[in-house]
Amino acid sequence: MASTERTRLLRDLVIANRILAREDVVDAYGHVSVRDPADPQRYFLSCSRSPELVAPADIMRFNLDGSAAGNDARVPYLERFIHGAIYEARPDVMAVVHSHAEDVLPFSLAKAPLRAVLHSSGVLGHRIPVWDIAERFGDTTLLVVNMAQGRDLARALGAERVVLMRGHGFAATGRTLSEVVRVSVNMPRNARALFKAMQLGEVKPLSKGEIDLRLAMSPDAPEMWRAWEYWATRAGCRHLLGRGPTTRARATRRR
Amino acid sequence: MASTERTRLLRDLVIANRILAREDVVDAYGHVSVRDPADPQRYFLSCSRSPELVAPADIMRFNLDGSAAGNDARVPYLERFIHGAIYEARPDVMAVVHSHAEDVLPFSLAKAPLRAVLHSSGVLGHRIPVWDIAERFGDTTLLVVNMAQGRDLARALGAERVVLMRGHGFAATGRTLSEVVRVSVNMPRNARALFKAMQLGEVKPLSKGEIDLRLAMSPDAPEMWRAWEYWATRAGCRHLLGRGPTTRARATRRR
Amino acid sequence: MASTERTRLLRDLVIANRILAREDVVDAYGHVSVRDPADPQRYFLSCSRSPELVAPADIMRFNLDGSAAGNDARVPYLERFIHGAIYEARPDVMAVVHSHAEDVLPFSLAKAPLRAVLHSSGVLGHRIPVWDIAERFGDTTLLVVNMAQGRDLARALGAERVVLMRGHGFAATGRTLSEVVRVSVNMPRNARALFKAMQLGEVKPLSKGEIDLRLAMSPDAPEMWRAWEYWATRAGCRHLLGRGPTTRARATRRR
Amino acid sequence: MASTERTRLLRDLVIANRILAREDVVDAYGHVSVRDPADPQRYFLSCSRSPELVAPADIMRFNLDGSAAGNDARVPYLERFIHGAIYEARPDVMAVVHSHAEDVLPFSLAKAPLRAVLHSSGVLGHRIPVWDIAERFGDTTLLVVNMAQGRDLARALGAERVVLMRGHGFAATGRTLSEVVRVSVNMPRNARALFKAMQLGEVKPLSKGEIDLRLAMSPDAPEMWRAWEYWATRAGCRHLLGRGPTTRARATRRR
Repeated sequence: MASTERTRLLRDLVIANRILAREDVVDAYGHVSVRDPADPQRYFLSCSRSPELVAPADIMRFNLDGSAAGNDARVPYLERFIHGAIYEARPDVMAVVHSHAEDVLPFSLAKAPLRAVLHSSGVLGHRIPVWDIAERFGDTTLLVVNMAQGRDLARALGAERVVLMRGHGFAATGRTLSEVVRVSVNMPRNARALFKAMQLGEVKPLSKGEIDLRLAMSPDAPEMWRAWEYWATRAGCRHLLGRGPTTRARATRRR
Repeated sequence: MASTERTRLLRDLVIANRILAREDVVDAYGHVSVRDPADPQRYFLSCSRSPELVAPADIMRFNLDGSAAGNDARVPYLERFIHGAIYEARPDVMAVVHSHAEDVLPFSLAKAPLRAVLHSSGVLGHRIPVWDIAERFGDTTLLVVNMAQGRDLARALGAERVVLMRGHGFAATGRTLSEVVRVSVNMPRNARALFKAMQLGEVKPLSKGEIDLRLAMSPDAPEMWRAWEYWATRAGCRHLLGRGPTTRARATRRR
Repeated sequence: MASTERTRLLRDLVIANRILAREDVVDAYGHVSVRDPADPQRYFLSCSRSPELVAPADIMRFNLDGSAAGNDARVPYLERFIHGAIYEARPDVMAVVHSHAEDVLPFSLAKAPLRAVLHSSGVLGHRIPVWDIAERFGDTTLLVVNMAQGRDLARALGAERVVLMRGHGFAATGRTLSEVVRVSVNMPRNARALFKAMQLGEVKPLSKGEIDLRLAMSPDAPEMWRAWEYWATRAGCRHLLGRGPTTRARATRRR
Repeated sequence: MASTERTRLLRDLVIANRILAREDVVDAYGHVSVRDPADPQRYFLSCSRSPELVAPADIMRFNLDGSAAGNDARVPYLERFIHGAIYEARPDVMAVVHSHAEDVLPFSLAKAPLRAVLHSSGVLGHRIPVWDIAERFGDTTLLVVNMAQGRDLARALGAERVVLMRGHGFAATGRTLSEVVRVSVNMPRNARALFKAMQLGEVKPLSKGEIDLRLAMSPDAPEMWRAWEYWATRAGCRHLLGRGPTTRARATRRR
C-alpha cells in the first residue's frame, strides 16, 4: 500500500473514532479497527484511549493474535482480541467495531430478539445472535481478554453482521470502515424503535428480501458518502475528509 | 415571480432545512421542498446533501416527474419522487417534508394508530394513514425511487396532512413552508406523548371539532411567526429571517 | 415600589424566562408572569415572544382582565388570561407559569393521576387536578383565550399549586418567581420518575405530612437560592443575578 | 499529608464535582466528598454550591459529626451528615457521593430491586438496598439533616457499595475518588438498561462470581484511568488532570 493510501486509511480510522463518539455509539470505552489492506494478517487500532480523544499518532498495528506489530510498547486495549479473532474467522470483514451502546443492552439481557425493522437497518443482517461469555468461560469480568474468548465470540457471530454480548455490548463488522460505522450507528437506533414498537403491539420486521437488497447495496454508493460527510461534520472532522474515486467525481460536478 | 421573491423563498427553504435538522426531524437523511409559486409544475429541493449542511447554492429546481429542470447535473436525492408525486396529486399542497424521525417509527411498525392528541398537533389532521411499500411493490429497499412508488404513496396520503411509511418514516404536507415545518416538528412530539399516555391507560385524543378548528387557523398568523422566529434562532439562522406582510406590521409596532 | 426594586423584579422575570427555556419547561410557547407587588391588580408578562428570546424591554404590564396597562400596542400572548384569572382568584399567588412541557402531557391524556413522588416535588402540593376545556366550552383550539376560560381553569386549580390542562400542558403558581420556577422545573422531572416507577409496580408517593413540610419551607431559604444561581448560570444569565437580603449575608460570608 | 498531596487531592475533588455534573449524576443538588488521608476522622466537601460551579477555594474540611473543622463560617450542605455517618461506619470507604440522578429514582419508588446487570456495573456490588427515611423518622422533608438520620442510612447501606433513598436518590461509596465517580456514573446507566430489559421479559443479572471479579479490580488500573481522563476532558477539566504513580509510567511510554 502506497504511503499516501495508508495515511488516508489512518485518517479515516480517526474520523470513524470521532463519529462513533459523537453519535453515542462509544463513550470512554469501545473501539474501531480496520484490517491492513496491504497485509490481511494485520489490523490498525488505537492504543488505549477513549475514541473521542484518538489522534493519528495513537494508531497501532496488531497481528491477528493481538500482539503489537514491530516494537511498540504502548498500552493496547484489553479487548483487542475481539478484532483479531473476527478478522481471522471472516476474510470478508475489513473493519470491526466494539461498542457498549446503552440502548442495545436491554436486548442482550432479555430473551426478546433484536431484529432489523427500519429501512436503514437492513445492514444489520438477517439475524443478530447473542453471545454469553459465561456459557463457555463461567464467571469472568465479561471482558474479552484473550484469543480463546475472541474466537468463541467469532463462532457465535458466524456469517452475520453483528453479535450481541450479554450484559456488555456488541461487535459489528463491515466491508469498509464507513460500512461498519453505518452498521454501528444503526444498532441503537433500530433497538430504540423496536423497543417502543413492541410496547405498541405486534411488530412487522423487515422481510428476508428487504434485508437482502440492503446487504447488496455498495458501501461506496453516493448515498453512503452523504452520511459519512454529515457524521464527520457533526463530529468536527470535516477538515479530515478525503474523497474516494466515486465521490470525487460527484463533488466536482456539484461545485 | 419577481427575483427578490424567489430569493426570499429559497432563503426560507434553507431556513426550513436547518430548523428540521436542529429539531431532530431529519438527520443525515430527510428533505424539504417547496412548490414554485410561479410555476406549479415545478418545485425547489436541495441536491443530495444533509439538511443541516444545505446552503442557498444547493437548491435545485425539479419537474413533477423528478427530472431536474434545465441543465443541472448535480446529484439529486434518490427519494425526490415523494415530493413530485404529492404535488401532482394535491394542488393545495405547497410544501412537503420527508423525515425518518425516530420517535414516529414505532407507530409505522405496529398496529396502534398514531392520532393527534395535543393542542398543537391538530395540524396533523384527522387521520394518519400507514403506507407499506411492500403491499404493491414487494421486496424493496423501502426507498421511494420512482414515480410509480411516489404515486402509490400519494394515493395512501389521500386528502390527509401526513402519511406514515412502514419502517421508514413519514411524508408531511403544508400550505406553506412554515406550516409543513410546524407539522413535522409536531410529529415526533405528538408520537412521544401518545406513546407514554398509552402506557398509562385509555387516552383521550383531540375531537373532530378540535382538529377542524386547528386546521382552519391561518398558517400566517402572528402565533405561527413566533415559532418560526424561535426555531430559526435556535438553528442559528436568525440572520436569514425575513418578514412577511402580516408580521412586518407587527414587528414595526413592537420596536 | 421604588424604581430600583422594579428593575430588580423585571430582571428576575427575564431570568425566569431564560431558566424555563434552558430547562425545557417552555419552548417556542409557554410564559411566566409576576404580580406587581406595588399594585396587586396588575402583573408583568412579556409581549408575544419565545421565552428564550425575552429581554427586559419586552416586558408589558397587564390588568387582571388581560388588557394592557397604559398605552401599549405591542402584541400580547394569546393565553395571558391564564395569568390574570389565577391572580384574581388567588391573592396568595405572586407568580404564574404556563407550560407545555412534554413529559407532563401523558398525565393530562390518560386517567392515571400525577402525584408528587420525589423529595423535591413536595412543592407540587397534595393534588394535581386535570382541567379539560371541552367540559364547559366544547370544541376549541384548547387555548385559553378569554377570561371566562381563564376563570374556569382557576376554578379547577382551586387551592392547589398546579393544574394540568388536557392535551395542552399545565399552569403552576408560586409565592415568588423563584418558587414558581422551582415548581415548574419539578413538574416534568416528577412526571418522568412516576411514569417509569409505574411500569415497575406499585408506587409509594409522598405522604401528606411530607408534602406539608415541603410546602412550609420558605421560598427564600439558602437552599433555594443555590438552585436559582445554578439554573441562572446554566441559562447564561449569571451576570443578571442579584442578591436578596437573605442571600446577600450568606454570600458575604462565603467570599 | 504533604501540602502538594493535599493540593492534588483537592484538585481531584474539584474534577469529581465537575464530572458528576457533566455526566448528569448531580444537578443543582448532590455532592461528593473525600476522606482526609492524613486524618481519617475528617473529610473534604464543598461549601453549599452546585457541583458544576465548585472551585478549589470552595472546599471545606469537616469532622465526622458534620461540624466544620477549624473556624470556617461558610454555609455547608444541609445533607453533609450522609458523608460523615458513612465514613464513621465504614473505615474502608474513602469517598462518598450523594445524588438525585433521575433514572435511578423509579427503583426507589417501586418494589422491583435494582440489580447490577452490565459488565461495567459489577462495581455496584451484590445488593442495592432501599432506605426509607419514614420507617424510623416518620414525616420529614426526606433530607438527611442530622447524624441520627445519617447513621440510620449507613446502617441500611451495611457492607454494600450503594444504598437507594426512597423518593430522593442514592449514596455511593468508593475506595478512591475515581471509584466512587465510576460507581455513580454507572448507577443511572445500569438503571436505564435494567428498566428497559424488564419490559422485554425475564432479565439475566450478573452472577455472584462476575460481581466478585469486578469488585476485586484495582481502582487504579490503567483501564480506570482511561475513563477518568475521558470524563475529565468532557467536563472541561483536562488541564486539572494529574497522574498517579501507575498512570505516570504508562503515560511516559505513550508519548
